[in-house]
Amino acid sequence: MGSDYLSVPWVEEARVIKKLLIANRGEIAVRIVRACAEMGVRSVAVYSEADRHALHVKRADEAHCIGDEPLAGYLNPRKLVNLAVETGCDALHPGYGFLSENAELANICAERGIKFIGPAAEVIRRMGDKTEARRSMIKAGVPVTPGTEGNVADIAEALAEAERIGYPVMLKATSGGGGRGIRRCNSREELEQAFPRVISEATKAFGSAEVFLEKCIVNPKHIEAQILGDSFGNVVHLFERDCSIQRRNQKLIEIAPSPQLTPEQRAYIGDLAVRAAKAVGYENAGTVEFLLAEGEVYFMEMNTRVQVEHTITEEITGIDIVREQIRIASGLPLSVKQEDIIHRGFALQFRINAEDPKNNFLPSFGKITRYYAPGGPGVRTDTAIYTGYTIPPYYDSMCLKLIVWALTWEEALDRGLRALDDMRVQGVKTTAAYYQEILRNPEFRSGQFNTSFVEAHPELTEYSIKLNPSHLALAIATAIAAHAGL
Amino acid sequence: MGSDYLSVPWVEEARVIKKLLIANRGEIAVRIVRACAEMGVRSVAVYSEADRHALHVKRADEAHCIGDEPLAGYLNPRKLVNLAVETGCDALHPGYGFLSENAELANICAERGIKFIGPAAEVIRRMGDKTEARRSMIKAGVPVTPGTEGNVADIAEALAEAERIGYPVMLKATSGGGGRGIRRCNSREELEQAFPRVISEATKAFGSAEVFLEKCIVNPKHIEAQILGDSFGNVVHLFERDCSIQRRNQKLIEIAPSPQLTPEQRAYIGDLAVRAAKAVGYENAGTVEFLLAEGEVYFMEMNTRVQVEHTITEEITGIDIVREQIRIASGLPLSVKQEDIIHRGFALQFRINAEDPKNNFLPSFGKITRYYAPGGPGVRTDTAIYTGYTIPPYYDSMCLKLIVWALTWEEALDRGLRALDDMRVQGVKTTAAYYQEILRNPEFRSGQFNTSFVEAHPELTEYSIKLNPSHLALAIATAIAAHAGL
Repeated sequence: MGSDYLSVPWVEEARVIKKLLIANRGEIAVRIVRACAEMGVRSVAVYSEADRHALHVKRADEAHCIGDEPLAGYLNPRKLVNLAVETGCDALHPGYGFLSENAELANICAERGIKFIGPAAEVIRRMGDKTEARRSMIKAGVPVTPGTEGNVADIAEALAEAERIGYPVMLKATSGGGGRGIRRCNSREELEQAFPRVISEATKAFGSAEVFLEKCIVNPKHIEAQILGDSFGNVVHLFERDCSIQRRNQKLIEIAPSPQLTPEQRAYIGDLAVRAAKAVGYENAGTVEFLLAEGEVYFMEMNTRVQVEHTITEEITGIDIVREQIRIASGLPLSVKQEDIIHRGFALQFRINAEDPKNNFLPSFGKITRYYAPGGPGVRTDTAIYTGYTIPPYYDSMCLKLIVWALTWEEALDRGLRALDDMRVQGVKTTAAYYQEILRNPEFRSGQFNTSFVEAHPELTEYSIKLNPSHLALAIATAIAAHAGL
Repeated sequence: MGSDYLSVPWVEEARVIKKLLIANRGEIAVRIVRACAEMGVRSVAVYSEADRHALHVKRADEAHCIGDEPLAGYLNPRKLVNLAVETGCDALHPGYGFLSENAELANICAERGIKFIGPAAEVIRRMGDKTEARRSMIKAGVPVTPGTEGNVADIAEALAEAERIGYPVMLKATSGGGGRGIRRCNSREELEQAFPRVISEATKAFGSAEVFLEKCIVNPKHIEAQILGDSFGNVVHLFERDCSIQRRNQKLIEIAPSPQLTPEQRAYIGDLAVRAAKAVGYENAGTVEFLLAEGEVYFMEMNTRVQVEHTITEEITGIDIVREQIRIASGLPLSVKQEDIIHRGFALQFRINAEDPKNNFLPSFGKITRYYAPGGPGVRTDTAIYTGYTIPPYYDSMCLKLIVWALTWEEALDRGLRALDDMRVQGVKTTAAYYQEILRNPEFRSGQFNTSFVEAHPELTEYSIKLNPSHLALAIATAIAAHAGL
């Protein structure tokens, strides 16, 4: 099939989305509102009572309250699809998190004639089941971490398999995710101890006692490839992102493209991602995550949704991923062919979290007394905060995504330092100054790092807090007043 | 010479700028502070009393007051250079406007050992003299508007020359600029009337009675090419900008690249600009302005400074023009070769002016009660305003540059509409809603327009003002109160 919108005029009439329900909140809801506005698609926001004053509510064409509970409404697939039907929507975008990888939501959408902006329910289910995803990848010729072929039935099988794979091994819940139901075992003794615990955890958290074993890849790099697939079977990749800068499995700074891949590795990983997506008949935007260690590449998992860090891929390729998602769900072919997708320069995304790096990254919710968005060349912000907004304590602590781009790696680093300095987020503590320390670190600047970087550099949280003159004056006045017994 | 920074390590030691005085204010001063911050150059701001709370003062590493008068300090070359010397600067950036094309400032800098970020004083002088610039271009083989070879001595010579050139003609003051000292004459009678008036105007405004004649190009397109030249004689162009959307010779919306050029025209204009710059030994960033009409290209003038609209060239090429300016003045070669400079997508810049389009674009100064910068993909802002800032009445009414970029022309237009909608500038009237009308206009969207567009579409100022709900509530409450006699 051709990839030119204009070559298939019939689809515009027949299938294009006119009104879309955004089943999410925060910056990703604002991001989707913006894509809708640019495409002439009417946007419908949903919100809990706690989100009544949220930016996505203000910016969408319509907004509907989905309950007093902070979370229940965002997690109720039937309620959300009903609202989409009632408000005359023809599509639903799940964003990331919440129900974005919930096969039931995709199923209910299909039943009710609402286009789900994502892959088919069956593909979500299949990639969400870790052992099934592994089997699919092995079949497609995508390298996976050495491990058990399926689940292990009991401790005896686990011990025998671990012997075969070699320690250290990872014991994983088949239905697990988000860093839960997973344990590293360095020896036979540790595996014996961990086995009943992980089964118990998995049963409680995911309602399934199934577990399996994988070789533990020590200090890997986390590299993921963005893919797009349309309903005509076209699949392309948009190069990779390096998400090795993580703390406790949470990504902090993402980079595109990876500064530590050769062009050959880049092409190989892109090809693997396309092969993985084609093997499961993937449609819409998705991400294939890999671990890299000692020159080897291992499939880790596939995320069947738009990711937080899709922004940096947009910066280096110029392709609007959310727009493509909506086009694909409309039944339109991809707007680009693989050979026309190029990457330029380097982009970094800083997840500005309302957390205190000096206090073990404790969340710091509250009122934003001042927000000033940094500007100038190569700077992008995606956020739902504004001056006067109160960050509710019920959700994610990520309050802003700061994205910088420049032609070279060094310039991108310097631009990141400048933009973090230029930005003002006052009223809550944030991770901004901590990221500046990372940007100044010679190891990071060399572009050679892996997922152990954050843990290996606890000294980076020991920065001194820069006071602006008015804060300093206040601190001095307070000290004088205290001293004078006022 | 090679264009690789790394190939000439000696220059880093010997000539690189360490501290820079910014002889300007407003958004361009902030832009230069940002470039300095990214390059590790210490920035020194200057300000009048009226600018004490300006953003460039807050963001620079140092700031010095240059007087109680709103304008005098910014227009005093000797005072500015003295300050640069006293504060230990090794360079001075003039920005645009003010003294940016003042040869005396460049001369004083040279005398005092301060690197002037711009071309040599002699080049500024030569390109500032319109008849001398014309002669230089003719010599270099750059097509100029048909006209007199030099100045005309008297009315008799003017009438004879006008007969030869053919009416309509433009009568221009040789030292004129900014739309002053210029008159269109459609006939012998109009020229006879205009001649003594333009001479009188020119004598008063520019201290010179010299005038010359050019053929009046009717309804041209305004196309200008960005160039960069280094001290090694390397000159490159960064493609063109289309600045045809003007009101009374003031640019409102600028576009890069022009949607109305063929690739052949684009290459031709780029080559002409490089030829023009090489002919005068041009160093640093500059712009060669052309008029296009009926397939012909005519040199108009050269601006020997960074331009307001340099941003859109940065968006399509990825090259940081202010950074290049500082590098060039440091004695470094250009960081790019012509064959490596590519353009991608389309960028538009909207000059958000504090003016009321519904009241003949009357300036609307005052306090910004709320500023919210638009975000998301392909959106950039360059501004010196912030929430709580009061725009002083002494300066330019341009308060913000909103820049959008997208891969295609249509997407860039839609992104512009969205970003203008997303942005909030409250407390003053602005041109934002007017630009949305232009973006919706079919002629503009077709990409075919010339400098008569704004004048030909007075109906575009007749938009209805969108009230946000809180404004509406206030208006209703006020109306009820008035009705009730409260």
